[in-house]
Amino acid sequence: MSQLITNMAIHVGEVTLEEVQHQLLSDYQKVRAETENLALPLSPEDMQLQSMPDASPTKWHLAHTSWFFETFILANRLRGYQTFNPHFNHLFNSYYNSLGTPFARPNRGLISRPDSAQVYEYRKFIDDSMHRLLSEYPIPENLAALVQLGLNHEQQHQELILTDIKHALSTNPMAPAYRDMFPEDEDGALEPLRWLSIPKDFYGIGSNGDAFCFDNEGPEHQQFIDDFVIASRLVTNGEYLEFIEDGGYEQHRLWLSDGWLHLQKNQQKHPFYWRLNSDGWYQYSLYGLLPLNPAEPVCHLSFYEADAFATWAGKRLPTEFEWEAAACHLRQPNQMASANFLEKRHFRPLQAQRGQTQFLGDLWEWTSSAYLPYRGFRAREDAVGEYNGKFMCNQKVLRGGSFATPADHIRISYRNFFYPHQSWQFTGIRLAGD
Amino acid sequence: MSQLITNMAIHVGEVTLEEVQHQLLSDYQKVRAETENLALPLSPEDMQLQSMPDASPTKWHLAHTSWFFETFILANRLRGYQTFNPHFNHLFNSYYNSLGTPFARPNRGLISRPDSAQVYEYRKFIDDSMHRLLSEYPIPENLAALVQLGLNHEQQHQELILTDIKHALSTNPMAPAYRDMFPEDEDGALEPLRWLSIPKDFYGIGSNGDAFCFDNEGPEHQQFIDDFVIASRLVTNGEYLEFIEDGGYEQHRLWLSDGWLHLQKNQQKHPFYWRLNSDGWYQYSLYGLLPLNPAEPVCHLSFYEADAFATWAGKRLPTEFEWEAAACHLRQPNQMASANFLEKRHFRPLQAQRGQTQFLGDLWEWTSSAYLPYRGFRAREDAVGEYNGKFMCNQKVLRGGSFATPADHIRISYRNFFYPHQSWQFTGIRLAGD
Amino acid sequence: MSQLITNMAIHVGEVTLEEVQHQLLSDYQKVRAETENLALPLSPEDMQLQSMPDASPTKWHLAHTSWFFETFILANRLRGYQTFNPHFNHLFNSYYNSLGTPFARPNRGLISRPDSAQVYEYRKFIDDSMHRLLSEYPIPENLAALVQLGLNHEQQHQELILTDIKHALSTNPMAPAYRDMFPEDEDGALEPLRWLSIPKDFYGIGSNGDAFCFDNEGPEHQQFIDDFVIASRLVTNGEYLEFIEDGGYEQHRLWLSDGWLHLQKNQQKHPFYWRLNSDGWYQYSLYGLLPLNPAEPVCHLSFYEADAFATWAGKRLPTEFEWEAAACHLRQPNQMASANFLEKRHFRPLQAQRGQTQFLGDLWEWTSSAYLPYRGFRAREDAVGEYNGKFMCNQKVLRGGSFATPADHIRISYRNFFYPHQSWQFTGIRLAGD
Amino acid sequence: MSQLITNMAIHVGEVTLEEVQHQLLSDYQKVRAETENLALPLSPEDMQLQSMPDASPTKWHLAHTSWFFETFILANRLRGYQTFNPHFNHLFNSYYNSLGTPFARPNRGLISRPDSAQVYEYRKFIDDSMHRLLSEYPIPENLAALVQLGLNHEQQHQELILTDIKHALSTNPMAPAYRDMFPEDEDGALEPLRWLSIPKDFYGIGSNGDAFCFDNEGPEHQQFIDDFVIASRLVTNGEYLEFIEDGGYEQHRLWLSDGWLHLQKNQQKHPFYWRLNSDGWYQYSLYGLLPLNPAEPVCHLSFYEADAFATWAGKRLPTEFEWEAAACHLRQPNQMASANFLEKRHFRPLQAQRGQTQFLGDLWEWTSSAYLPYRGFRAREDAVGEYNGKFMCNQKVLRGGSFATPADHIRISYRNFFYPHQSWQFTGIRLAGD
Repeated sequence: MSQLITNMAIHVGEVTLEEVQHQLLSDYQKVRAETENLALPLSPEDMQLQSMPDASPTKWHLAHTSWFFETFILANRLRGYQTFNPHFNHLFNSYYNSLGTPFARPNRGLISRPDSAQVYEYRKFIDDSMHRLLSEYPIPENLAALVQLGLNHEQQHQELILTDIKHALSTNPMAPAYRDMFPEDEDGALEPLRWLSIPKDFYGIGSNGDAFCFDNEGPEHQQFIDDFVIASRLVTNGEYLEFIEDGGYEQHRLWLSDGWLHLQKNQQKHPFYWRLNSDGWYQYSLYGLLPLNPAEPVCHLSFYEADAFATWAGKRLPTEFEWEAAACHLRQPNQMASANFLEKRHFRPLQAQRGQTQFLGDLWEWTSSAYLPYRGFRAREDAVGEYNGKFMCNQKVLRGGSFATPADHIRISYRNFFYPHQSWQFTGIRLAGD
Repeated sequence: MSQLITNMAIHVGEVTLEEVQHQLLSDYQKVRAETENLALPLSPEDMQLQSMPDASPTKWHLAHTSWFFETFILANRLRGYQTFNPHFNHLFNSYYNSLGTPFARPNRGLISRPDSAQVYEYRKFIDDSMHRLLSEYPIPENLAALVQLGLNHEQQHQELILTDIKHALSTNPMAPAYRDMFPEDEDGALEPLRWLSIPKDFYGIGSNGDAFCFDNEGPEHQQFIDDFVIASRLVTNGEYLEFIEDGGYEQHRLWLSDGWLHLQKNQQKHPFYWRLNSDGWYQYSLYGLLPLNPAEPVCHLSFYEADAFATWAGKRLPTEFEWEAAACHLRQPNQMASANFLEKRHFRPLQAQRGQTQFLGDLWEWTSSAYLPYRGFRAREDAVGEYNGKFMCNQKVLRGGSFATPADHIRISYRNFFYPHQSWQFTGIRLAGD
Repeated sequence: MSQLITNMAIHVGEVTLEEVQHQLLSDYQKVRAETENLALPLSPEDMQLQSMPDASPTKWHLAHTSWFFETFILANRLRGYQTFNPHFNHLFNSYYNSLGTPFARPNRGLISRPDSAQVYEYRKFIDDSMHRLLSEYPIPENLAALVQLGLNHEQQHQELILTDIKHALSTNPMAPAYRDMFPEDEDGALEPLRWLSIPKDFYGIGSNGDAFCFDNEGPEHQQFIDDFVIASRLVTNGEYLEFIEDGGYEQHRLWLSDGWLHLQKNQQKHPFYWRLNSDGWYQYSLYGLLPLNPAEPVCHLSFYEADAFATWAGKRLPTEFEWEAAACHLRQPNQMASANFLEKRHFRPLQAQRGQTQFLGDLWEWTSSAYLPYRGFRAREDAVGEYNGKFMCNQKVLRGGSFATPADHIRISYRNFFYPHQSWQFTGIRLAGD
Repeated sequence: MSQLITNMAIHVGEVTLEEVQHQLLSDYQKVRAETENLALPLSPEDMQLQSMPDASPTKWHLAHTSWFFETFILANRLRGYQTFNPHFNHLFNSYYNSLGTPFARPNRGLISRPDSAQVYEYRKFIDDSMHRLLSEYPIPENLAALVQLGLNHEQQHQELILTDIKHALSTNPMAPAYRDMFPEDEDGALEPLRWLSIPKDFYGIGSNGDAFCFDNEGPEHQQFIDDFVIASRLVTNGEYLEFIEDGGYEQHRLWLSDGWLHLQKNQQKHPFYWRLNSDGWYQYSLYGLLPLNPAEPVCHLSFYEADAFATWAGKRLPTEFEWEAAACHLRQPNQMASANFLEKRHFRPLQAQRGQTQFLGDLWEWTSSAYLPYRGFRAREDAVGEYNGKFMCNQKVLRGGSFATPADHIRISYRNFFYPHQSWQFTGIRLAGD
């Protein structure tokens, strides 16, 4: 979405309301089309797969994102709207207990019907209805905000489509590729890692709400942050391999206690998608099994692995506040355009290029911060209020987006969150120090 | 398969070898076509489903039955045979440890590739190769026996396709039907249950090996059996409902200890596919959810339920020897033709008609016998020897076939076997008494 | 108990009723004292241990056997009897659902109160009450039978006290001994294994009920048994070691499918109590860790191990009917007196001595028979009826008693039963062949 | 311990070194005696109990605290020291991987040997050795610090002895009491809850290290805290009962997502030790089952329950920094002396008395803060470094101590930590608001 315009959808200024509404419809079409684009390389069988409770079938993502528009917008706002199929409210509800008990998450892969053709019909039905709704003039102001939320929600599922299908396909001993084309080679030497200093000060944290943001990014506030240094780029496969070869997975002292137990229980000796063949290390990727590229940022680490690596390196992970302050302070003129986001269609993290800090795109970066509400945070009272707040326990904050994040979905204030043991997301490491 | 001819394939008599071979090829084509027929109503998504480790996706059944011909016949017997895809030996091996570690059974539903189109190609490739092999003349004698085994093996999977897809579809809250057409009504009053007496004597048990049989049906031997009585038909839904309404699921005294623990653990109060709605009992069937028909044989019982019902009724289950003696002794002239087998396309057990004993077809009948080798049984030394013998522990014998069993697959001496807690097969009850 | 007299307690003959009653009281005192004898080497802490749900604390055995007399005899038969502690009915009920939900079996080790001193008080209270009851004259006939049952029940728990404390103490890395004294050495060469032939015939199976027996030993009946051979002694540690060294635990073909899965799941490579130290094999025993004695019968095997060994040896296990026929047919004059039973206080199986067949004592012998009712078996209607019948599923029959079985508790017709994976009992192998 | 003197043990000032050393020995004797005092009401059987992996047997606590002195002090510092029993290093190591793999935590209840008498001998042996060591003059400076650590460690286990034995005894259906004497009645009306305002400012957080503290209490630093209000006392049983009666356990909106899942999984409807009898609510206590006292602080809540209650009440939990700032700001002259600590021997939380804020003693107070290192925190490099730092993930901070905490063990800067689902500790709620 064009951030400029979406701001105006809410805080209308010089453009006309009609222009704003027109932009909203155009954003809607663009986001919805992108989702289907991502599903294009997949067969109906691929789209049916659920390889663990944390992940969902592609087909479910296609349906659930439509259900979101149906439930939170069409059902209440479009005159005379008739639900497409009353069972879908149960089947495609993710976790909104206010709307009834959702269908059991671990069983999403058991729903063969509707089949994928029917889910595409469902999407078309929703799109037609949304088109009708957004063509009425004028739409109520808070409707625009809900549509924005729906589109950002769908963009989150675009990334999940990729993380989840990668996990599902990886269980196949044939190591099939999500896409066939082979990635172009990268050339050039690896950028040496530099330490950038950020001076102690009060820094503004969070979103001021002028543009669209999620509720967990506010309230905006000042945070005092002491002097610290932060790495100029992400940690690479080659650097992580040194950690492994130095016995990193065997030295309990490097690990948090829960991380060490997790390692022992899973007999883990390397990152989740790495495989040691007779001729060296490989990495399962969206292009299938590829030889490990030492210059590429190391990916699919759990928080425990990120933290142990930092300890081994004599450094630490940044707090989410340090990360946000550094990302602001070191903001580069061309940052958004040059960053490795979904639109680039690389489908993997790229080696840092000269002068590139990788704060945005490439990989989500684990921070040392627990996912907690900012002071004064209040969840909405309605069902949409279940979106973020209820997850503020036991998770860690990640920042910056990845190669699978749409460029107009992310912000410096954006807070993603996962449990510390999870590694199927596109997650990496940026080091910090005092 | 025509039993007459298949006999001759092994013990060649008056027909010419050429005729025998021709019949074998014709049997092959018929069986293979039937498997694909059964998959016809299913979408690629349906065929991908695995709803529990005991069950397999339809697609896997389609591939595994082809793998059987490829592995045990084509790979060794067809000159110049090139395997279709070397990964398939791992993916579609069920439990033959002699052939390498099979792909983990609970993960069969995670294999989206090959997709169903590719599996049909695989089937065609195997069929073409088998056609070539069986068109050479003459084929070696023991090849015919292996082909027979392969076809009987595939017929077993035909029934499993139906039991497994029923289980998978039942997890969908929309209770979808495997087939759309609605079953015709049955009319006529229920046959009253009569007690048939079988006199004590030595009875021949097992197959004499003239016709095809599985190794577990031999050696044929004499067994002394005391006087007993046996029911003239299967127990019905209506009769089983009396058991439920009399508190059958709450009275621990009626249950074996392991059965009682199984009930408590699963909070089970009725047969697996029964559902109590506000307007009465329904039963999930291959036609979707249908009102419970009291005259229909009660289906999908575990051994524990069958045994508890018999105890409640003041009777017992027959031993497998009693069952076999009774089925022989009471054999009816028209029995095979009138029985409710797969070819009838009823896809459910039928109410017993006047004079019909239901020993064959309709439902597999639990016996009180543990699945053990007959004295003198020896498993084959090669990989095919893993077929039956290694399962002779912890299971119970079932007899007689069901509405999902092909007519030319079953015999009176046929021994099926499942664990006592399992109920997703088409299983029912015939009572006996001293 | 003196079998001669206990017979008479039920079928009174030439002795006077008074003598019978006197004998009963004397039997009672002897059995009860033996139980406490077995607990003597244990501290209160030892007696508290429960190392798995299958096993129970010594203290619980001491209390439960008393509860049996209180519940099934004193509560109904002794005028004015007041229960010792009303909570005990819940705490010390093993599995009699007719008497209310028993205290959860896996939690028996959590009951510190009553402590062992209080449990001994409880035993004394029961003993005093039983003494009073059995001193009334005359006692009703069926009371004697119940007391017999109670005493045989307590004798079963005497063996369980030993199997359970062995398991519990084995979890301690110090490998403590149940008893301190070291076992005397055995001398003499190992008896070579001979094959004894038993001719085909009808053999009487089961107990005629003249003497005390459990309900599962009847009805007595004739069974036709074909010619077979049976080993002249138990399999030894040395012979079993050959199986291990021949890769027995790595060859899937030797194993039943469920047994192979059990091995893989538990990563089992040798019998449960064997431990390979740098200087060779050791065996954890009731005397602590001892070097493996090759001439001693191999002990603590699961049915799966026994069956795999027999397959490896090119033999099989006997059926329970063959075992019983052989044990009768080969009965030796001095058999009971020379057998290694509990009274011998060896606390381990002994090397077979010249001419000794070991049918009785030393180790329970796995048979190939599933534990099923004999034809015509009916469980009692009252709570005591839960004793045996409800366990007749999923278990295997063992015969002959062990070094931990009291001599006057066992008979040739005695049927013990355990699940095929269980190995904490004193179980061994006798081979048979066609 | 006398804080005054223990300071000096490290930062020697006006007192003589001899006086300091004398005080240390006296502290040692006092702490060690208190541990044994707490075990006095328990039988050997009680001391053997382990009712869940999180809890340990009393006997293990008695031994482990001695092992701490042996391992970290005696083994290296006392000339000629011979270990009491080399197995103990394995058996009584809690989680120090640097010292070898600890004995599996869930199996601590299976160690009957050493029995309790032998553990008391072990304690005496350690005490004698420590006495010898501390009587040498002068002791090295860092030895005093290690002894301090050992004593504070033992005091932590004093509280755990009480929480763990309470959990263990609660599994007994007789609801036995840890101590027999009945608690005296409290009189007087409940103090109304008032809201105390704390002004925004920089507040000093953490310990300056002049007195003994744990490493996780530093580095001391300034924290800016905004205006907030905090409750004048703990939440009571009566107030919590209102939450229950208002359907608090059925309203998903009040709960964190992980908390709601925890509730559903455990079917939890009330605090862990509450029991609803026919005549009302009871609470299992160290005195056995007592009628619920509405004026008593509500105890044994998980973080999820504390957080849901706060949400229901329209408030929130304080951060650990707010708590520390408030506890300092509102410090009362007589606070330590009047607080309900272990020395008062109440063995339960008490109703707040007039003017009493309950910041210290009574119950540990859940804060909203994740347990994370203060900036600049570094764990020690040696084995003792495993004490605190490796647990800084997935846990929540609790503050203030409880009725089971020794008075000279606690400080305002003291940080305790547990997982959010845990409720067997003496945990309660203090509310806060913006």
